[in-house]
Amino acid sequence: MISLRVDKIGLDPEHGQAIVLLKDDEGRRYLPISIGPFEANAIALAIENVQPPRPLTHDLLKTVLDNLDAKITRVLIDDLKEAGDGTGTFYAQITLEAPGRLIEIDSRPSDAIALAVRSGCPIFALEKVLDAAAVSEESNGPQVH
Amino acid sequence: MISLRVDKIGLDPEHGQAIVLLKDDEGRRYLPISIGPFEANAIALAIENVQPPRPLTHDLLKTVLDNLDAKITRVLIDDLKEAGDGTGTFYAQITLEAPGRLIEIDSRPSDAIALAVRSGCPIFALEKVLDAAAVSEESNGPQVH
Repeated sequence: MISLRVDKIGLDPEHGQAIVLLKDDEGRRYLPISIGPFEANAIALAIENVQPPRPLTHDLLKTVLDNLDAKITRVLIDDLKEAGDGTGTFYAQITLEAPGRLIEIDSRPSDAIALAVRSGCPIFALEKVLDAAAVSEESNGPQVH
Repeated sequence: MISLRVDKIGLDPEHGQAIVLLKDDEGRRYLPISIGPFEANAIALAIENVQPPRPLTHDLLKTVLDNLDAKITRVLIDDLKEAGDGTGTFYAQITLEAPGRLIEIDSRPSDAIALAVRSGCPIFALEKVLDAAAVSEESNGPQVH
């Protein structure tokens, strides 16, 4: 299990799609994940500490967790399923700590990361996911603008 | 306090913005609320019973509530603040029932409605909000396509 952090949000120049770029703690490997524009905005506002005038959906989710005495202890990107046409779908698990119990919830990585940057919890990926999809530093990282 | 239900999701032909159209139980008054495209999609998929391949953010929020033994008992659109330039912002409250307590959470109406249609809870608006922003049946309802 490898610890990652959000390096930046950018645009894949080839497809014009938003990308969240995760970096391992040594900065040797980058994991680019394609996400929707709404989720990209939700992650970007939180890492830039911008408070929107009204709560966004992920802010609401964080407020719900706070009110129910639950907190996110970690986010784990635990799978990548290839569709066979060259595209793939990443999977994530959110771990919640509620009074007296731990709960694992299936999530898209984009939602999981948007919550992680709001709650300050660590982000991990399984080694097999990085092996399948990470880009190494030697290639100067992925082309994300 | 007036009970409303989602009549449809449409586009405001003048500004090209997504609108959720709420209708009172007698079908005499309509409350149009401008919302973002992501939230419009989240509401539309739920009222059409379309299950996306991966959970959307509001599906994740609903799963979190289920796992924490909390349920949404109602959504109330309780205010409309005019900005002075002709635009206004609607406010909503989500009421959660958790073991032993009721919790009120501030929300954008779009998020509140996206959750209401997933949980089957009633949607209400204060009379003053309808007085300020509702359109009557006599005008054949608002122009939403």
